[in-house]
Amino acid sequence: MNTTDVAIIGGSAAGLAAATTLMRRYPEKRISLIRNVTQTVVPCGIPYVYGTLGAVNKNIIPDNQFRDAGVNIITKHVNVIDRDNKVVEFDDGETLGYDKLILSTGSKPFLPPIDGVDLTNVFCIHKDPAHLQTILDALNPAQNVVVIGGGFIGVEMAEQIARMESRPAHIRLVEMLPHCLMTACEEEYCVVAEKELEREGVEVMTNCQVKAIHGDSGVQTVELADGRQLDADVVVIGIGAAPNIELAERSGIACDARGGVKVSRTLQTSDPAIYAAGDCAEKFSFFNGEPSAIRLASIAASEGTIAASNLYADTQRETLGALGAFATKVGTRSIAAAGITTQAAKQQNLDVVIGEAVASNMHPGSLPNAIADMRVKLIFERQTGRLLGGHVCGGDSSAELANAIAVAVQAQLTANDLSLMQYATHPLLTASPVMYQLMVAAENALIQL
Amino acid sequence: MNTTDVAIIGGSAAGLAAATTLMRRYPEKRISLIRNVTQTVVPCGIPYVYGTLGAVNKNIIPDNQFRDAGVNIITKHVNVIDRDNKVVEFDDGETLGYDKLILSTGSKPFLPPIDGVDLTNVFCIHKDPAHLQTILDALNPAQNVVVIGGGFIGVEMAEQIARMESRPAHIRLVEMLPHCLMTACEEEYCVVAEKELEREGVEVMTNCQVKAIHGDSGVQTVELADGRQLDADVVVIGIGAAPNIELAERSGIACDARGGVKVSRTLQTSDPAIYAAGDCAEKFSFFNGEPSAIRLASIAASEGTIAASNLYADTQRETLGALGAFATKVGTRSIAAAGITTQAAKQQNLDVVIGEAVASNMHPGSLPNAIADMRVKLIFERQTGRLLGGHVCGGDSSAELANAIAVAVQAQLTANDLSLMQYATHPLLTASPVMYQLMVAAENALIQL
Repeated sequence: MNTTDVAIIGGSAAGLAAATTLMRRYPEKRISLIRNVTQTVVPCGIPYVYGTLGAVNKNIIPDNQFRDAGVNIITKHVNVIDRDNKVVEFDDGETLGYDKLILSTGSKPFLPPIDGVDLTNVFCIHKDPAHLQTILDALNPAQNVVVIGGGFIGVEMAEQIARMESRPAHIRLVEMLPHCLMTACEEEYCVVAEKELEREGVEVMTNCQVKAIHGDSGVQTVELADGRQLDADVVVIGIGAAPNIELAERSGIACDARGGVKVSRTLQTSDPAIYAAGDCAEKFSFFNGEPSAIRLASIAASEGTIAASNLYADTQRETLGALGAFATKVGTRSIAAAGITTQAAKQQNLDVVIGEAVASNMHPGSLPNAIADMRVKLIFERQTGRLLGGHVCGGDSSAELANAIAVAVQAQLTANDLSLMQYATHPLLTASPVMYQLMVAAENALIQL
Repeated sequence: MNTTDVAIIGGSAAGLAAATTLMRRYPEKRISLIRNVTQTVVPCGIPYVYGTLGAVNKNIIPDNQFRDAGVNIITKHVNVIDRDNKVVEFDDGETLGYDKLILSTGSKPFLPPIDGVDLTNVFCIHKDPAHLQTILDALNPAQNVVVIGGGFIGVEMAEQIARMESRPAHIRLVEMLPHCLMTACEEEYCVVAEKELEREGVEVMTNCQVKAIHGDSGVQTVELADGRQLDADVVVIGIGAAPNIELAERSGIACDARGGVKVSRTLQTSDPAIYAAGDCAEKFSFFNGEPSAIRLASIAASEGTIAASNLYADTQRETLGALGAFATKVGTRSIAAAGITTQAAKQQNLDVVIGEAVASNMHPGSLPNAIADMRVKLIFERQTGRLLGGHVCGGDSSAELANAIAVAVQAQLTANDLSLMQYATHPLLTASPVMYQLMVAAENALIQL
């Protein structure tokens, strides 16, 4: 029987971060990376296959750095993990003995419980190059496309489909909630995203529920709850994902049906030799340790790193808990955040103070391509002054500005801390030092505390 | 006699931050902003007047937000502060009584102690629109330009002069040290900047000392210590600046000849009614509290905010000390940093561990305009793991990424802290979550600790 020191099952963000960490920390260990797809796609890059990149093969994570480091990449389906004998059993009858194992099987897209989701040219998004090519082939001749779900995937897919060379005549984005991106972003930033989508030629239909999808063999229309019928050659569904725990359950590893593979803060599962990381693993909130539904590649990468470190370490590292740090770009605007939203603070009855700032993303604002109104909004706990979340809407540096916020939230800094700090500024790259949004937003909160 | 509640003397970064803070915190106070120039230029924007902006009047900070808030802007030269009577005396004989005063008189450019610095068309950079226009008028017909000094101002001026519509045939940048930007940047990033300058058509002459400047009335040549003569129609000198303490000294406020106006951590001067902020004020190092020569607009903005807050506050805010957070862009590359350099760590005999990471600034790297090698270098104290400094070289998001580092340094975070945090990533805006440079650089340092 073939054996390995560490078997990683699942080759996306968590699995790759685990492999990278093992190569860095335990270069003497034999690593096997098991996946059920021939190539690994860049998960967050999938929408860009359809517009900016124009081809599936431009969105592949190359294997060579792993192969060169001696990682054994196995493209097979795993039937079960025989934990008593520490053996992975593949569906072709082959086996692989392991010493430690990392489960990083990711998530499975939700399907809405409606008629017609099984019609031809109705697609969820799977991280499989062949599947993504099938979607591209269907989109190329399409004239009417309906995207169901206005979260990150739906918004980015709709925006990129609008940039296809063979652009469909009608692209509609259907969202149940009053706004796109509403669970992650501040409401006024959602409005910015919607305006950008409209400008890109996407018809944004919020407060709209889908009742059914109709067609003979192939999709023809999408029926809304209010009776409207939308013509559709292709339907793309992006309404969220559930932890993929099938293998874990089959193998007798403790799972929560909704939350995922049960893990400790060190990411150990109910089997001490097995760790879980990424979308398949249970999440705790950074803020209160309660179960969290946030699933992001940034969390997966962090968890993969922590889980892999812990496999052979005396001192076990612990995850800080799921924060929710993300970024997106819609049209000309980038939107990014870390931590809680105003809406979430209200829902949780938190007593918060909000500081805002707006400044040009370059200074002076007369510089070519300056975005005059790059906004930052910081949400602080009133009693302690502690930063709970921050949101950015503006130029392409929004994501890294959100990372300054992410660091501040995770370091549990206060409005006073942020208001006293010094920040790097430059005419072509940031707001002016006097207007710098993090400092000013913190000051604006501070005077309310 | 006219009176005011707060007199601010000096209208650049520190003075404007002070005025903004007073408007925010003490809206009932009467504010007078005194400056000796008709308009305030964006200080860091000065180099861009010559290339990207093309006009001095595009680099002006508008007064209206201050005037609209009732700030009295006085364009006069101050002779002396009569501190006994709390009166500012102007050179036209007028006076202004004050309750509190903020000194933000900035810095004066150094002149090298060589012959010829007083020749026509030999310029230092003053923050005065009329003066900047004179330089532009001289540069427009120039064929041979020599920039003396390879710090930020010199590098940015040379790069922008190379982008003038009436581009001089020869632009030479003369630097005494082995590299441009060497006191602020990592050596290998200095090399990147030099390559970008060369690509922009600037001849970079390092290890070169200027012996004299020659000409009849107007400059004709620059003579180097090795005897070489460089043709020059215009010479721009940017070799640093000294605190402008003339008024403080004339008014009997305690000063250190090299360090500037003496201040406490609360930025109070030897006169309890007078605070000082910005380039004119003494600086302490963020790291050890020792006198520091770092002078940046980001420090000035922070100090102006702190000083203004303290004027009428029971609880006095204290400056964290000068950190050194900056950013620049040379050609296609942006370079940014916060905290100490490897070179400074060596000079101070600090025992440090360095973690580096390199990744594309977008993911996948096949995206249009991706910069394949965006680098981050983090410098940690070995004994404590504490972050002392970080450096970034890559795309335009470098400055905000350096601000994540700035926050981390000022929050005294460790390599372990940074390696466990989650960061916002997006294909169009950052490296991939698995390769994200802050996390990976921290991990790479951690395995050496």
